[in-house]
Amino acid sequence: MSDEIISQYDYLDIQKMDEGQLVKLADEIRKKILVAVSSNGGHLSSNLGVIELTIALLKSFDLESDDLLFDVGHQTYAFKLLTKRNLALLRKKDGISGFQDIDESHFDKMMGGHSSTSLSLGMGMAAAKKLEGDTSCTVCIIGDASLASGIPFEALNSFKKEKYSKLIVIINDNGMSISNTSDAIKGMLNRIRNSIFYQSRAGKFKKAFDRKGLRPIYTGAIALKRKLKKVLLPTNYFDFFDFAYLGPIDGNNIHKTVKFIERSKQIDGPVILHLITKKGKGYKYSEEDKIGVYHGVGPFNLEEGYTDKKDENSGTYCASKAIYELLKKDPKAVLICPAMVYNSILSTCFETFSDRCFDPGISEEHVFDFATGLALKGAHPIVSIYSTFMQRSYDEIYNDASRMKADVLTVIERSGLVGEDGSSHQGINDLALLETIPNVSVYQPLEANLIDEIIINHDFSSMHPSFVRIEKGNYISDKEYSLLPYIFKKGMKDDVAFIGVGSEFLKCLALLEKGDMFFLTKLIPLDCGLLERLLNYKTLVIYDPTSIKEGLSSNIAMNLIKRNYRGRIIIEALDKAYYLGMKKEESLKQVKLDADSILNKYLDR
Amino acid sequence: MSDEIISQYDYLDIQKMDEGQLVKLADEIRKKILVAVSSNGGHLSSNLGVIELTIALLKSFDLESDDLLFDVGHQTYAFKLLTKRNLALLRKKDGISGFQDIDESHFDKMMGGHSSTSLSLGMGMAAAKKLEGDTSCTVCIIGDASLASGIPFEALNSFKKEKYSKLIVIINDNGMSISNTSDAIKGMLNRIRNSIFYQSRAGKFKKAFDRKGLRPIYTGAIALKRKLKKVLLPTNYFDFFDFAYLGPIDGNNIHKTVKFIERSKQIDGPVILHLITKKGKGYKYSEEDKIGVYHGVGPFNLEEGYTDKKDENSGTYCASKAIYELLKKDPKAVLICPAMVYNSILSTCFETFSDRCFDPGISEEHVFDFATGLALKGAHPIVSIYSTFMQRSYDEIYNDASRMKADVLTVIERSGLVGEDGSSHQGINDLALLETIPNVSVYQPLEANLIDEIIINHDFSSMHPSFVRIEKGNYISDKEYSLLPYIFKKGMKDDVAFIGVGSEFLKCLALLEKGDMFFLTKLIPLDCGLLERLLNYKTLVIYDPTSIKEGLSSNIAMNLIKRNYRGRIIIEALDKAYYLGMKKEESLKQVKLDADSILNKYLDR
Repeated sequence: MSDEIISQYDYLDIQKMDEGQLVKLADEIRKKILVAVSSNGGHLSSNLGVIELTIALLKSFDLESDDLLFDVGHQTYAFKLLTKRNLALLRKKDGISGFQDIDESHFDKMMGGHSSTSLSLGMGMAAAKKLEGDTSCTVCIIGDASLASGIPFEALNSFKKEKYSKLIVIINDNGMSISNTSDAIKGMLNRIRNSIFYQSRAGKFKKAFDRKGLRPIYTGAIALKRKLKKVLLPTNYFDFFDFAYLGPIDGNNIHKTVKFIERSKQIDGPVILHLITKKGKGYKYSEEDKIGVYHGVGPFNLEEGYTDKKDENSGTYCASKAIYELLKKDPKAVLICPAMVYNSILSTCFETFSDRCFDPGISEEHVFDFATGLALKGAHPIVSIYSTFMQRSYDEIYNDASRMKADVLTVIERSGLVGEDGSSHQGINDLALLETIPNVSVYQPLEANLIDEIIINHDFSSMHPSFVRIEKGNYISDKEYSLLPYIFKKGMKDDVAFIGVGSEFLKCLALLEKGDMFFLTKLIPLDCGLLERLLNYKTLVIYDPTSIKEGLSSNIAMNLIKRNYRGRIIIEALDKAYYLGMKKEESLKQVKLDADSILNKYLDR
Repeated sequence: MSDEIISQYDYLDIQKMDEGQLVKLADEIRKKILVAVSSNGGHLSSNLGVIELTIALLKSFDLESDDLLFDVGHQTYAFKLLTKRNLALLRKKDGISGFQDIDESHFDKMMGGHSSTSLSLGMGMAAAKKLEGDTSCTVCIIGDASLASGIPFEALNSFKKEKYSKLIVIINDNGMSISNTSDAIKGMLNRIRNSIFYQSRAGKFKKAFDRKGLRPIYTGAIALKRKLKKVLLPTNYFDFFDFAYLGPIDGNNIHKTVKFIERSKQIDGPVILHLITKKGKGYKYSEEDKIGVYHGVGPFNLEEGYTDKKDENSGTYCASKAIYELLKKDPKAVLICPAMVYNSILSTCFETFSDRCFDPGISEEHVFDFATGLALKGAHPIVSIYSTFMQRSYDEIYNDASRMKADVLTVIERSGLVGEDGSSHQGINDLALLETIPNVSVYQPLEANLIDEIIINHDFSSMHPSFVRIEKGNYISDKEYSLLPYIFKKGMKDDVAFIGVGSEFLKCLALLEKGDMFFLTKLIPLDCGLLERLLNYKTLVIYDPTSIKEGLSSNIAMNLIKRNYRGRIIIEALDKAYYLGMKKEESLKQVKLDADSILNKYLDR
């Protein structure tokens, strides 16, 4: 496969290509992306939608001086191909990141992963350039879903053009978000999009005048048109900010897109250029996808299309089933899932209990205050959120949910290492963050049946926020363990204890040969009985391959210190670091925290 | 004083009062607030501005069923007075919070402190009420400055009226923010405000018709007016959201405000009611204040007005001087201070170096991405931010500033306990949060001269974000200590060491009688030489009265465990908790972490 999708292009060649050649190039790139993603898995629809835009950007801007910032950055496969990167290694160990990465190429100007940062980063760059007298362009390419977050709003709101060098914001509007959320920004974009006829009629208008050689009249008409446009087109959200607005334009038309980018460059001052693109373009299955199946996919057969095999043993699936049962059983239960409904397998919940399900889009700060408000009025809010995105909710969990004793049940998706998504997406800090918040409880179920039990039987009168960590990947369902703060297993030696958590620890039963084992389920607060028992061992090995050491490990250690424990404590947990994209198992092996490495180390094999 | 400002009112009486009585009541309340704030210190301008609004709210809503949510909540002194609270105890130990507090009164429906949360909380409540068939009103009162944050945008953007019971958002627009920031929302509010003549002329119009008995014509004209209004008034930001919009109205006119609140209640569905209020109203000094002197004040003489005695020994003052020097010395230095310019004593910097100073308003998420963008283009960004507000920036520091190795220098204001502002404002979690982020350094200067040295001589080529913790209160400036990761002092005994940080530890020199002392300045990463030295002691006492145990203490402890330290570790640091408002010294004493308590404990006095 490698040869097929290694890039033989030089982006500089694009400058010399005519319209026909550019369209042909787009076709070639599209095929290569389809091969790469169907082989390695990755983001598909967004990448298929922006191929023409990417070519237009490379034709219009000078990569050695201008700065292109792709928000999130999962839509940069075409960009990567055109800047000499080998998509055969996409999302592989020692390979190519699925996002923008400044360590991967000097053409990548930001680290991607979490959404909605490009405007703020771009504004910082444009402010620095202004001070340096650097007149190159800073270009932020941001999707409609990313605009729902408060961050670009904060950026736009504080923007005053006199302090910035040339800034162009390109809205890549595919009207889809990740799945099909609906919000005010989307409504506004829709209204604008529906006026697109205006653009196409204007085109015909121009041709008519050209044919008759009446260009001066046309030019005068254009001025009138611009005035009219302000009255006729719906006033849009962007009019409130200190930007000129151009659009909407068909962003899958290279020629038109180049033309309007050039116009954006000519306008004095900052410009918002609004492009309409077709997500999933050029591959029939993804074009027809309305719910986000082709947003991110595993490897699949191109002819047959992707079938999302819902692995019934996956933690996500188990949690989604449990959430469904809880919504069914408890009429006060309300589900909130910001922008990740499809990936968290919650579409059925949203269809069945639509009046009690909320997807507020990418809005991590809002989510926990919203949930707190629900709880304060006696509803039973369930938040489903990825661990890595919950990092944006810290202050609202701390100052609002916890301080107001709101009984919010949070299902933390993708806790622990997450594999191919890499450095921005690891769910390894949540425990350490929750450690610093008073008045919370945190569970990490060992087995599938415990996920069920914890969620379905949650007591919504506990007067504090509760969290359930769900690891990425499969859970066993032996139903061997019951829902206790911890499970004890007697080993063959008395002076050593292994205290651990998570699915990987269940593979370490052979450690019983060397000592007792404690399988933890309740991580915050720790069980007092457990802590007292631990004092009896000469050596304690704490094993947590799902969190940084500042999480569970330091919590146990600090509690032992408080009790004046004087034995040896050995900690086997993740160092705080940015873990790159590769299979989750490979990550664990690399840092010697997989079950095999632990068994080898402690069993002297 | 107590008698003067204890409330003798019953809010239910307001229902029976006529217009004249209400105006008289407002005058009385205003006097009481002036007495209370000039005696105890507190927020002044915002409270003086909303007295009429508060009375109007209490006249229009039923406190036993409707929910009033005051954003931030520092403008609720009139509300507190009218709901039987004693302002003599304002911000005192065991007294009355300076914000809304659900533990203080059942009339307070949320915990306040951090801005911009009321819409999300209110939406949660209104969603819960909708499910219960509860038709009472949920009312969010939010200021123009709070609207600059991304949180209300996320809330408004995701709002769809069919899922919520009656929601009224009251924009309390005093056009001031905390200081006089300028942003898009403000520009938009200004444009609307400038059309206020429209309202007053409409009033005259009505009277004219009334006089002549031509009411039916007037009614027809009203319908026309409504249509015209859509054309004549500038389309405003709120039109994009799923709300009816009413306003702008003079919010210091009780009669008018009541009238429009009633109209808001009658409209079917959610309403945004836009009020213009005069910040500082009724006290000449605060009315004339353009920069925020009277936003929050210490005790002062009412006749003479407040003079902000800049204590030259305060950490804030020292840091502000150092920032000024850095801006003066280094033309690449850029200062970013979100919404706290006056309180961080940075106005002079903003005046002198206006092209290199940015106040993006309340925008903690944006700030660190903006700073990262600046750093990536070779500028030298300095962020000045309160510790407690930086909690909202965690993900941007983690995923952006640190991951992109951006050399951002952050001056963390109000680190440690902060005193009267209470539970929402303590700066005690920042270290624990920064502990979880790879690739950062954190300093906590012991003396005033070290604040200078660390900031002015910062090396902007270290390829990672750096943080300097500044405690609230005064610093000594003996210039006894130099800028080293730690300072060692030989004590009279060999087997015990005290390791500590912060200004309070400097008062503990008598501990030398019992052991060696290590004064830390560099907290992250810890000095390796220090850690090796600590292994030689039988007992280590870690003293950090400025952070929770999950901060410095656990960092030292975990490093010792890694080195297989087997001695005794005693930790004297803050428990994670919500510390209530009282003097900082009182807080420290209460938890026995003041120097006296430590000396008493370890010197067997």
